[in-house]
Amino acid sequence: MMRDLSLSKVYALLEPGPVVLLTTARRGRPNVMTLSWHMMVDFEPPLVACVVSSANYSFAALRSTGECVIAIPAVKLAPKVVAAGNCSGSDVDKFAAFGLTPLPAQRVTAPLVAECFANLECKVADTRFVRRYNLFILEVVAAWIDPAQSNPKTIHHHGYGKFVVDGATIKLKSRMR
Amino acid sequence: MMRDLSLSKVYALLEPGPVVLLTTARRGRPNVMTLSWHMMVDFEPPLVACVVSSANYSFAALRSTGECVIAIPAVKLAPKVVAAGNCSGSDVDKFAAFGLTPLPAQRVTAPLVAECFANLECKVADTRFVRRYNLFILEVVAAWIDPAQSNPKTIHHHGYGKFVVDGATIKLKSRMR
Repeated sequence: MMRDLSLSKVYALLEPGPVVLLTTARRGRPNVMTLSWHMMVDFEPPLVACVVSSANYSFAALRSTGECVIAIPAVKLAPKVVAAGNCSGSDVDKFAAFGLTPLPAQRVTAPLVAECFANLECKVADTRFVRRYNLFILEVVAAWIDPAQSNPKTIHHHGYGKFVVDGATIKLKSRMR
Repeated sequence: MMRDLSLSKVYALLEPGPVVLLTTARRGRPNVMTLSWHMMVDFEPPLVACVVSSANYSFAALRSTGECVIAIPAVKLAPKVVAAGNCSGSDVDKFAAFGLTPLPAQRVTAPLVAECFANLECKVADTRFVRRYNLFILEVVAAWIDPAQSNPKTIHHHGYGKFVVDGATIKLKSRMR
């Protein structure tokens, strides 16, 4: 079961740059894509920018519904993350094909991904940069964390299927949030 | 010595979400800040989005000069990266205070950081999102890599001075660039 996460803590999940999954649902049909081009824009309410290419099947769903879920996979899901990135929702029901489990979200129609350790329900907050840059500003409206996955290791894409997995943690005295 | 890097390879440096340093120079005075809120926007020419708070001393320099350098530090620089994030250029000459070495760039007045394994010279390409989101679109116009730092491990910020260091590399068959 997913536990709800304070919106004030969302930034610490995305700021480290993990590869994420982005789900959408259009006309009752859920889809999922792989995404690395995202960043935090504001702490609270959490605003997230992401680039979803207009060549992606998810683009039209994101634009027309104004909703998505950002789901964060740990390293054990890496093969499915790559598989989801290597095909298009126009051809494949990726949830079924890759054994990912859609769960109903609370505030959006796009599904959570049960296997991911964190799920962020998002509403598109600004589309003015879509035409020029395929850049969406999202507001995270609900956040969920799976307490059964403790200390999950995320993956970071270096291009062409090369990923670096989270290694050691270091702690330095900092005033930075 | 820094070796020039093909602009087509820049995305693979930033897409994994490392903590970076951002340098500026205004009226002959160089400054450096710590930044995690950045993402790729396009491959080539490489476009990068970043959020620099208007509360940061670097904001005015970035806006008025339209130039900066994104320098990527390996983990050995973590203490200096945190130190640079914990004070303001309005009070401190951070290059001198933290033993960072500014090097002249080729296309911009902001300096490279000699100790970093990669340096990206950037010009501000779009300021239309600055007023609302403090979001700058940068174009990388020249890129440099230090061949003496092989296989550098970057750091990823999880909030309040907690960083995850790059761990193992995995390779999965992928059609994704």
